[in-house]
Amino acid sequence: MIKNETSATNINCIIRLLQYKNALQRLKRFGFIRVFSDNLGDATSVSSTQVRKDFSLFMISGNKKGGYIIDDLLVQLNGILGKEETQRVILVGAGKIGGALMEYKGLLTEGFQIVAAFDTNPRKQSSDEPVPIFPLEQMTEFVEKNEIKLGIIAVPADVAQATFDTMINAGIKGVLNFAPVQLKAPPAVEISNVNIAMELEKLWYCVKVS
Amino acid sequence: MIKNETSATNINCIIRLLQYKNALQRLKRFGFIRVFSDNLGDATSVSSTQVRKDFSLFMISGNKKGGYIIDDLLVQLNGILGKEETQRVILVGAGKIGGALMEYKGLLTEGFQIVAAFDTNPRKQSSDEPVPIFPLEQMTEFVEKNEIKLGIIAVPADVAQATFDTMINAGIKGVLNFAPVQLKAPPAVEISNVNIAMELEKLWYCVKVS
Repeated sequence: MIKNETSATNINCIIRLLQYKNALQRLKRFGFIRVFSDNLGDATSVSSTQVRKDFSLFMISGNKKGGYIIDDLLVQLNGILGKEETQRVILVGAGKIGGALMEYKGLLTEGFQIVAAFDTNPRKQSSDEPVPIFPLEQMTEFVEKNEIKLGIIAVPADVAQATFDTMINAGIKGVLNFAPVQLKAPPAVEISNVNIAMELEKLWYCVKVS
Repeated sequence: MIKNETSATNINCIIRLLQYKNALQRLKRFGFIRVFSDNLGDATSVSSTQVRKDFSLFMISGNKKGGYIIDDLLVQLNGILGKEETQRVILVGAGKIGGALMEYKGLLTEGFQIVAAFDTNPRKQSSDEPVPIFPLEQMTEFVEKNEIKLGIIAVPADVAQATFDTMINAGIKGVLNFAPVQLKAPPAVEISNVNIAMELEKLWYCVKVS
């Protein structure tokens, strides 16, 4: 995945915090109550020194002998990462990829909810789908009215830029893009690209040269 | 997406070459026959100087006035990127995400074909799905027999590491992982992670601080 430049000064540290949070949630589900920096380092493939460094940067302190209480850590990490309540996301494009995202439970587990999908063909909806699908023309009004800040693009490549522009004009500030094109964005907008074919190409290149 | 360390010395350059190739294929579909470094720079959000620098690094030369012939460039890029024929990929996990990947035409366009899927419940297959789904136990034999090097993981998080280990033991060298866990891999194996919830979290953090 290729990430646009971000205004955050230390995005790598934030990515590690997200990985710690992810690992903590899994450990909690396994029944763990406390962890040590070594556990977290092992679970996220970074050194325990790095874990402690990241935590001290954000003034998260633990008892050296007793480790960290998972629930306390999660509260502190959520405070830093700014996501204590469910964040609402819209989806544009309700085809195969979009459909899979609508039914993907992993988003809700992590505090994101696709509240509405938009498609040029809203009749695509099947009765058991959990997200309402509206005509594309209703997207701007929905985003403005509900003050949605995050959106997912899962439309064909040739309409991705136009879709993106409409979303940005409506007030979307961050976009997860599944269309295999490089979107042109104003500086205040964040894009994260998931280009599945390009990921496979990178892997294939690495496998070939190794 | 968080990428494992790779042995390639200049992965950023390779990523740009992949983006150029992607853009060239789109321009070709639009009916373009030749391009200039400025066109490619515009399409991929890099400077035209960078495009020429990358090309000269791999001894791709163009006529300063006439630009580059798209077909010639694609042949040269495919030679560098090592993918002149369709690469075969296996998929493990035929749920929602896996199902969407099986029907995603964008992979074939880029020269990748999911030749088989494996699932603990192979009856999940519907008659119109284009990829055969086999029981998970048959994966090792299939990979060995067909010398498959690339695989996609789309299984639940709690079985992802075991799935990964089985794939690696069978001979898979590069894995695209959709399970939201950090996999532990031997050094000779490349992993690329698509963690959709984590991408949204990064976006949300960036939107929040900007």
